[in-house]
Amino acid sequence: MNDKLIIFDTTLRDGEQSPGASMTRDEKLRIARQLERMRVDVIEAGFAAASNGDFESVRAIAEAVKESTVCSLARANENDIRRAGEAIRSAARGRIHTFIATSPIHMEKKLRMTPDQVVEQAVKAIGWAKEYTDDIEFSAEDAGRSEIDFLCRIFEAVIDAGATTINVPDTVGYNVPEQFAATIATLIERVPNSDKVVWSVHCHNDLGLAVANSLAAVRAGARQVECTINGLGERAGNASLEEVVMAVRTRRDVFQCDTGIDTTQIVPASKLVSGVTGFPVQPNKAIVGANAFAHESGIHQDGVLKHRETYEIMRAEDVGWGANKLVLGKHSGRNAFRSRLQELGIVVESEDHLNHAFARFKELADKKHEIFDEDLHALMSDEATTPELEHYRLVSSRFHSETGETPQAELTLAVGGQETHIAAEGSGPVDAAFKAIETVARSGSELLLYSVNAITTGTDAQGEVTVRLALDGKVVNGQGADTDIIVASAKAYLNALNKLHSKLERVNPQV
Amino acid sequence: MNDKLIIFDTTLRDGEQSPGASMTRDEKLRIARQLERMRVDVIEAGFAAASNGDFESVRAIAEAVKESTVCSLARANENDIRRAGEAIRSAARGRIHTFIATSPIHMEKKLRMTPDQVVEQAVKAIGWAKEYTDDIEFSAEDAGRSEIDFLCRIFEAVIDAGATTINVPDTVGYNVPEQFAATIATLIERVPNSDKVVWSVHCHNDLGLAVANSLAAVRAGARQVECTINGLGERAGNASLEEVVMAVRTRRDVFQCDTGIDTTQIVPASKLVSGVTGFPVQPNKAIVGANAFAHESGIHQDGVLKHRETYEIMRAEDVGWGANKLVLGKHSGRNAFRSRLQELGIVVESEDHLNHAFARFKELADKKHEIFDEDLHALMSDEATTPELEHYRLVSSRFHSETGETPQAELTLAVGGQETHIAAEGSGPVDAAFKAIETVARSGSELLLYSVNAITTGTDAQGEVTVRLALDGKVVNGQGADTDIIVASAKAYLNALNKLHSKLERVNPQV
Repeated sequence: MNDKLIIFDTTLRDGEQSPGASMTRDEKLRIARQLERMRVDVIEAGFAAASNGDFESVRAIAEAVKESTVCSLARANENDIRRAGEAIRSAARGRIHTFIATSPIHMEKKLRMTPDQVVEQAVKAIGWAKEYTDDIEFSAEDAGRSEIDFLCRIFEAVIDAGATTINVPDTVGYNVPEQFAATIATLIERVPNSDKVVWSVHCHNDLGLAVANSLAAVRAGARQVECTINGLGERAGNASLEEVVMAVRTRRDVFQCDTGIDTTQIVPASKLVSGVTGFPVQPNKAIVGANAFAHESGIHQDGVLKHRETYEIMRAEDVGWGANKLVLGKHSGRNAFRSRLQELGIVVESEDHLNHAFARFKELADKKHEIFDEDLHALMSDEATTPELEHYRLVSSRFHSETGETPQAELTLAVGGQETHIAAEGSGPVDAAFKAIETVARSGSELLLYSVNAITTGTDAQGEVTVRLALDGKVVNGQGADTDIIVASAKAYLNALNKLHSKLERVNPQV
Repeated sequence: MNDKLIIFDTTLRDGEQSPGASMTRDEKLRIARQLERMRVDVIEAGFAAASNGDFESVRAIAEAVKESTVCSLARANENDIRRAGEAIRSAARGRIHTFIATSPIHMEKKLRMTPDQVVEQAVKAIGWAKEYTDDIEFSAEDAGRSEIDFLCRIFEAVIDAGATTINVPDTVGYNVPEQFAATIATLIERVPNSDKVVWSVHCHNDLGLAVANSLAAVRAGARQVECTINGLGERAGNASLEEVVMAVRTRRDVFQCDTGIDTTQIVPASKLVSGVTGFPVQPNKAIVGANAFAHESGIHQDGVLKHRETYEIMRAEDVGWGANKLVLGKHSGRNAFRSRLQELGIVVESEDHLNHAFARFKELADKKHEIFDEDLHALMSDEATTPELEHYRLVSSRFHSETGETPQAELTLAVGGQETHIAAEGSGPVDAAFKAIETVARSGSELLLYSVNAITTGTDAQGEVTVRLALDGKVVNGQGADTDIIVASAKAYLNALNKLHSKLERVNPQV
């Protein structure tokens, strides 16, 4: 029988640290439910001590998720660990993931601690964590530049203290597969109590090698891979969950491991994360790109080779392609709507909320013939905006553009509950709408990115607009969906402004 | 001294085989010039025998490019090789890349040839190629499922016949690094005349391992890597040029090779290819993604670590980030405009053409304060549409949308030179515009994708719209740029219709 390979998803922690990928609690909950449905073993739900918002997100996910282990990151200090412990208290299975820097430069400059003090602190951290859970992961921050003797020493000590998973990150994405595999093999061989724990790796993709490094480590004995949907994560991101999982599955002969992942949930998870973050998936992305299973091959066309499998090592259905089926239309009733939301894992908190959402669904169905799952996600995403965060709201709009004239926008906005009517001109109707909004908001923010993707195909598809704004070093993404792209743009801009208003400062660790 | 690693770019051949990535001759020329500027060693410009259009593209690139070797692909038959030979005749340095299938299943079912006949055909192919050039590459199609003994035999024979580069493709992206490296090492060891040629690899990314497999092969002795900008290519694409180049450069200690690439041209090349194909680059793509060098790290914010390099293994400037500088504005003159186009490698064929382009530039500068290189690329891309391909053209437009009313579009189109006025309603102004166009065109095509990206930042940025249409198994991308997103959308839709009209059937090989 093959070994189990534990899939540890950190989309909600390391993934969320991508500039512009920050998510609301409700968005995180929706992704966590999809990860659970996909049978991810461990969901790193956040870094509880980073802010009250992060704490609340971890706590909400710990409450909602029953099948997967829910994990919070924590620095190796008492406050961080107690916050993490509190946040995961209600989890069916909770894990605390604590870390401390182990490289000479970090110990000296950042921690201002001696190696002895670092080992002592790490052991203490495991002790605090044990008050909350027996499932404790320890990471050596900046392991790549740490001395191997010191790594062996600190790992032995934390295993003795009760750590059950030891994680070796390639924090800056500098490793190449052979070398990284050799490091893992050496650690497993030299740490005397290495057989008491699961060895884990966490690779970054700066040189495009995160997946290859992770897989090389699996060959060397690692049995947990930390990864993210779509390879999200700081800079060039983390190892892609979908690539790791499908490589292990497709090449069982080489890896001799099995994951517990329901691979048919991979594409829906990818679409959900892309929709929430506004980060597109490029068409040639492995597994989840729109072209990953599409051929433009003359060799098929000439009909000589009858078997499509000749050029395919995986089947599109196995990773969840083709699941985008028509679900609802304008004649669908309230019950059909409610049960489809349940199937999608979207929780509606009250009957009032459901009634309101259903009214919006009917409006959409009047404009658009076929309502797909993606449309429901977009609708409910819009719907989920908590009123207290909605300082700015679009009430109504009017746009006009004509060859030879300057495009115009007239908007009625509710600002803190007060309606205001504004008008502006611009280089296009979207520019005019943004300028109109800024005459009221005067945010001083900079527009970093504007993109639109049709949520589904067909000319009547809803456009989902992402607007990325920066202000004083804060970066937020706003989203808006509508069949009218200008309306969607205005909503996205307002959504971003609302997020700027509520965004809190917080600390993001480098693991 | 380190060995030279030859960078063979196949963006214009394998990259163009991605469904939806087909390019016009002028677009290919522009990309070829950028590849030359980046000092790519070999540019695979196309597959000359695929169609007359492909032949013309290869010929035009062979004429225009002086510094890089220009290569055409050819099946191992006399007609293909003569077409390739003719197409590269005027190249300063020309290469013919011929291939034949070597796996039992392909030899039997597709070629209907015995192994002996396949060897004989391959040797003949080298002979025909030698009539045109001494630079001859031979690929074993479906090498992964070929018998190693047979590979050794055919490689020895073609090397004796005069092949100078031997390429081993991982056609279906099934290999893992160790195994692929072992195959390359075995071939180099067992083929008696292996020291007479450069060994090359061509990896596909279906499991996310194309770059890792290529690099493992380099460690095993390969000295040419076939790759593409942004990892474009069939299905999940090929090895990314930018990742291969930067991994070799950043880890010279491991690879002991140098490429001749001017890495500061990488980001401009990536943006150009993304713009031409309409394939977005995801923010977390290594090297060329918008976030690849962006941090959201609390550890920087806390100011403890003064040195940014602590978390960076490459510098953003080294790969061409930050080169997006303001170049022109509304007061820029004709000479400034012309010389910037020259610096960008955009060739304007006549004074008339320049005058027309300059008039369009002035129009744009009236609407948009700052004109960036990306704007010029978009403008000239639009401009480069050859009139005979422009069956449909937008003359003028009027759009109106208002809360509570159905969005409306009125368009004046030139159809085959005749002006027509049309109006339609839709679920949004873009839908209305597309419906108006279809009342005239009646193409029956299906809209597969609609996306918008702002070409630069700022609210007055031009939107670049990509529309992907499918009809009878043909897939085309249309592009349109304008500061008015609805106008850009209408242009993109018309551009796609024009491409559908002119697109020819052709054969795409699986190498």
